[in-house]
Amino acid sequence: MSMENAVPERVIEDRLKRILDLASREGLEYVLLAQPENVQYATGFDVVGNPPKTAYALVAESLEGPILMVPPLEYKEAVDTVSPLVKVVSFKLGEKPLKALLRLLVEYQVRGCVGLDLCTREMADGLRAKLEVREVKDLNDGLLKLREVKDSYEVECIRQATRVVEAGLQRAYEVLREGVREVDVAAEVERALRIEGAEGMAFDTIVASGPRSAYPHAKPTKRVIKRGEVVVVDLGVRVHGYCSDMTRTFIVGENREASQVIAAVKGAQEAALKVMRDGVKASTPDAEARRALKEKALDEYFIHSLGHGVGLSVHEGPALSSSSNDVLREGNVVTVEPGVYIPGKFGVRLEDVVLINKGGWSRISRLEGL
Amino acid sequence: MSMENAVPERVIEDRLKRILDLASREGLEYVLLAQPENVQYATGFDVVGNPPKTAYALVAESLEGPILMVPPLEYKEAVDTVSPLVKVVSFKLGEKPLKALLRLLVEYQVRGCVGLDLCTREMADGLRAKLEVREVKDLNDGLLKLREVKDSYEVECIRQATRVVEAGLQRAYEVLREGVREVDVAAEVERALRIEGAEGMAFDTIVASGPRSAYPHAKPTKRVIKRGEVVVVDLGVRVHGYCSDMTRTFIVGENREASQVIAAVKGAQEAALKVMRDGVKASTPDAEARRALKEKALDEYFIHSLGHGVGLSVHEGPALSSSSNDVLREGNVVTVEPGVYIPGKFGVRLEDVVLINKGGWSRISRLEGL
Repeated sequence: MSMENAVPERVIEDRLKRILDLASREGLEYVLLAQPENVQYATGFDVVGNPPKTAYALVAESLEGPILMVPPLEYKEAVDTVSPLVKVVSFKLGEKPLKALLRLLVEYQVRGCVGLDLCTREMADGLRAKLEVREVKDLNDGLLKLREVKDSYEVECIRQATRVVEAGLQRAYEVLREGVREVDVAAEVERALRIEGAEGMAFDTIVASGPRSAYPHAKPTKRVIKRGEVVVVDLGVRVHGYCSDMTRTFIVGENREASQVIAAVKGAQEAALKVMRDGVKASTPDAEARRALKEKALDEYFIHSLGHGVGLSVHEGPALSSSSNDVLREGNVVTVEPGVYIPGKFGVRLEDVVLINKGGWSRISRLEGL
Repeated sequence: MSMENAVPERVIEDRLKRILDLASREGLEYVLLAQPENVQYATGFDVVGNPPKTAYALVAESLEGPILMVPPLEYKEAVDTVSPLVKVVSFKLGEKPLKALLRLLVEYQVRGCVGLDLCTREMADGLRAKLEVREVKDLNDGLLKLREVKDSYEVECIRQATRVVEAGLQRAYEVLREGVREVDVAAEVERALRIEGAEGMAFDTIVASGPRSAYPHAKPTKRVIKRGEVVVVDLGVRVHGYCSDMTRTFIVGENREASQVIAAVKGAQEAALKVMRDGVKASTPDAEARRALKEKALDEYFIHSLGHGVGLSVHEGPALSSSSNDVLREGNVVTVEPGVYIPGKFGVRLEDVVLINKGGWSRISRLEGL
């Protein structure tokens, strides 16, 4: 079976080191992962997607490598595709996931202080009842923070996903014209995304025309697009598990008011980007984008936050919003997506993806002129 | 704005009555919903999808109708599309969801016994700290059970979604031939699904050829399909929020061994269907399918459960598995999907959707000859 998509061994080794460093700082002997993104991060197995697979990972200094536990139906794919560093074990057929997991933990004599990324009462009680576990610690926030800083393999995956999304937006530009329906645009765009290498959609494709473009999350309908209308196209795909997420706003024919709003949103994006670099509070670019839109009396129509981190999850930290307590760090990959939504008329959103570095940022999305 | 997709008022009224009956049996004065499927069920707002929208619903006998709470970016779409029975309110811009929710509950003087479908410690503590709440009860299982029995509107939505999936499988049959890649098949099929009326995919499309068909959850790759190979195509879409989910296994050219396995899997499906009706334990058809495969010495390769309920969630109750404690009930809509996966060789899965009734079941999927 082909190993071409396996995550390189050095990448898995680096990640394990990062997880074990976190565990050591928290005084933990074992880390038990149940969130799909974390399991994929630690093992390289293709867990994320819609829906994610059921899978657990156990990581500890005392183990030779991570243990990946999956139901029987995923076992062979896991064995054939993960790095030799990862040991794959299986539930019994028909066994409930929590029961299988506890069986694994008993077998590996897990004890002492254990960190979990999904700290339900059921899980915590199960650990304490069956094992000599002294303490159970919620490690979810720590792991989220860790995943916010991308390694170069991750950046390359997001870059590839972004190339695919750009091809989809290019296709939207080609097929958008008076008389086509939103669903026709979605059909052509998604076809292009697949052929360009999408392994799945990161989220439901948005194609929203005319007054529907003022709904930020509108799904494609049979609505026929008319001359002079605005169309918001927001696309996301996964490549090697990693997401990208971009938006462009098109005008079919001419619309002077919409052109002015597009220019204003572009200005807001530039204002936000100007202040983005390692060490800056993630609320600052959001405030800058709002300030720029206020100058055009459009700030009341910017009804969502400026952006979010992108990785194995399409929406992760840091949060670029007014209420965010995050700080931008070198290695963050984030969207910058100001929008203006005028009810009953039209909406405009422009979304790009950038990589934060010490002095500023570099583009991951590079689609210009659209 | 068009209301053509709004859930009919009588349907919303019926559902509210069912939720309030459940609340009354549990001694609850208020029901607070946070699971996307439950919020959509109670309000008719399009919440489910990938990812689902953030939204809450509050239901109580003492209220005129359900309260739907959404972030600012969803507010206008919600107001324009839900039934007049539903009152829509919004978070403040930048307000954290839990904070917004507690503000709503204080405003509506929620007190006494409250049922929740997402009973995190944070939520329960928040309720007790801010409100005169005497008791917090986890209502998740009760609501899942309630949603397992479909009303006629729901059955019609699933039926429409199934027609769309069938058109996609028909398209797969047309394009499958020697030399095409898995991704090409996925691209053509998903294009057809969109044009036929899919508002989104219920899960990542599966197109798995040759030895990859032995992975039940394989994603489409650039692998070129060869003559004599098996191809498993598993598709799901949403229509009006409701999912369908069907699988067919194709042979490109001829493959005698695979043909025999397909016949055996078909026999297992028939054996399972023979015992399905209201009142039967949901583990019984799973056992029947295994028994039929055992007669062909193929049972060791049936490495997953027989099926699952389908509705606003693509995987919901009842569970048709060996460890299931569920009982089939009139109004359940379930998949019946035996499979045989021979590592390194090929896999076969056949999945149909049926509606359980008193005396047996009726077909929802009706694609024959594929």
